[in-house]
Amino acid sequence: MSSIISLDTIKSCLSKCADSDLIQIIEDGFVSYSKGDVVVPPVGHLPFINPPGDLHIEYGFIKGDDYYVVKLASGFYNNPQIGLSASNGLMLVFNQKTGELLSILLDEGHLTDIRTALAGAVVAKHLAPAQINRIGIVGTGIQARLQLRFLKSVIDCRDVIVWGRGDEKLNDYKKDPMLAGFDISTTQNITELTNHCNYIVTTTPSKKPLLLAKEVKPGTHITAVGADTPGKQELEASLFGKASCIIADSISQCKDHGDIFHPVHQGIIKEDQIIELGTLISTGQKRKNDSDISIADLTGVAIQDIQIAKFVYQKTKA
Amino acid sequence: MSSIISLDTIKSCLSKCADSDLIQIIEDGFVSYSKGDVVVPPVGHLPFINPPGDLHIEYGFIKGDDYYVVKLASGFYNNPQIGLSASNGLMLVFNQKTGELLSILLDEGHLTDIRTALAGAVVAKHLAPAQINRIGIVGTGIQARLQLRFLKSVIDCRDVIVWGRGDEKLNDYKKDPMLAGFDISTTQNITELTNHCNYIVTTTPSKKPLLLAKEVKPGTHITAVGADTPGKQELEASLFGKASCIIADSISQCKDHGDIFHPVHQGIIKEDQIIELGTLISTGQKRKNDSDISIADLTGVAIQDIQIAKFVYQKTKA
Repeated sequence: MSSIISLDTIKSCLSKCADSDLIQIIEDGFVSYSKGDVVVPPVGHLPFINPPGDLHIEYGFIKGDDYYVVKLASGFYNNPQIGLSASNGLMLVFNQKTGELLSILLDEGHLTDIRTALAGAVVAKHLAPAQINRIGIVGTGIQARLQLRFLKSVIDCRDVIVWGRGDEKLNDYKKDPMLAGFDISTTQNITELTNHCNYIVTTTPSKKPLLLAKEVKPGTHITAVGADTPGKQELEASLFGKASCIIADSISQCKDHGDIFHPVHQGIIKEDQIIELGTLISTGQKRKNDSDISIADLTGVAIQDIQIAKFVYQKTKA
Repeated sequence: MSSIISLDTIKSCLSKCADSDLIQIIEDGFVSYSKGDVVVPPVGHLPFINPPGDLHIEYGFIKGDDYYVVKLASGFYNNPQIGLSASNGLMLVFNQKTGELLSILLDEGHLTDIRTALAGAVVAKHLAPAQINRIGIVGTGIQARLQLRFLKSVIDCRDVIVWGRGDEKLNDYKKDPMLAGFDISTTQNITELTNHCNYIVTTTPSKKPLLLAKEVKPGTHITAVGADTPGKQELEASLFGKASCIIADSISQCKDHGDIFHPVHQGIIKEDQIIELGTLISTGQKRKNDSDISIADLTGVAIQDIQIAKFVYQKTKA
């Protein structure tokens, strides 16, 4: 009989796990992905018209593993007007040997948020500058919060500037109990981040560059999480030309619809300059010099869903 | 809160419904589909290697409807060796206005079997010869049984010959309580069907033609259900050249991987000779002469899943 796991149970399960364990499963997933050990078909997409929205279906498995996973994640952008979350969804864990349904994780999009933030922590583990002066967060939403929350166990620095477009959102961010322990100041002027922060995470759905090439200082690392569909862009394309280390969670996805699309399309960088995150991890590559600019582009890969869903299933079964 | 509906509840729900109501919802679905009122992206496919198997993901909605539906259906072909069904799966019903999950139908593939058989009954309603001498069923599996079971409320004839490859399977078929009321004789010689039956339903995964052009008599109607993936074929391609009425549940699917693929590919028929089932229904077209050969090719369309899942959800909620 398959188990049905509620959002509360999922949250309770995750709260009992060490961050390092969660980060490790996502890291292991990226390594398997870049080695070609993962079968992940193209994402299924169902667009809704009235009201506007969309459904994404991501699915796949690690070859030889016991499980396969299907994730359904929807966005209905008018939902907040009627007091509902825009994001919704669930994950399904199946037996890879028999096709039997093992578990339904009614995560309502939460596990996608978590696995996306965990990828940011994986990047920090391998690419953070030796000395971080200050962390800069671009955006004030759920991903802006979770990215910082999971950096806690990877980065010692607790000094943070968050950039946003309004006082209320910035104050809400600052007061989030999830971020207790960080010393957070706020700004609506993004050059405050580029001037003072050498570790920056961008988390917005912006369609215009927020971080400009001339403003980013040598020695800065940037993790760009926001651009996940065609048309979005958080980093100026020419900024990639200044970077000595360019990482993609999935090269094929990032050049298609990540922030990396723009510099590749404009000929500023070549595809062979991009290193896939799983390859970076398995080859043990690091930033070479303190003055390097490094950029990691994260578009989200189904292997993250596979790993987090399997993990929660196994933990709640145990 | 979303409801979780077990296979037993689904079966109990369906057993209380009139066949005519079930046939009508599938008929309505085909009409909507052929009118272009349905959004159905390409089927997602995940192939498994060891053991061999595959997962199909079908999903979509009727424009302006309250719901959208996602179906996951898997086949693990070695399962029967360990006492498990090869087929598995579930259907998910969501709110099309908000994306909220409304219901999980743990149907284990049963609703796919039912909606496939109901399409056969829809065809019979519109294309059966005025006078049916005898019904011929090709195959002895679950679809061979369900097709006949749902013909009961559409066709008066109770005289049946079933063709199969072994005595045991043929006897099991004959004794199936689901088929009580039919007078069933069995044969391993398919010309007995073509000689005596003017309504034939083919339900096998054959890769070689079973019904040959020279053997099918004028006045016969054939519904071909078995060929649903590339490489399968139940009807000799030249048989389509003798047919005056050729129906496809979905023209795009049938010419890609249905029985219709073969005559189109070989230039025996042209695409404009094919009428889509929903168009046939909405225009009220019928067989013109008693001597016509008509063929309906059914590959299965997501609108059938949408309709049956919505129906069961609404009935069990009521």
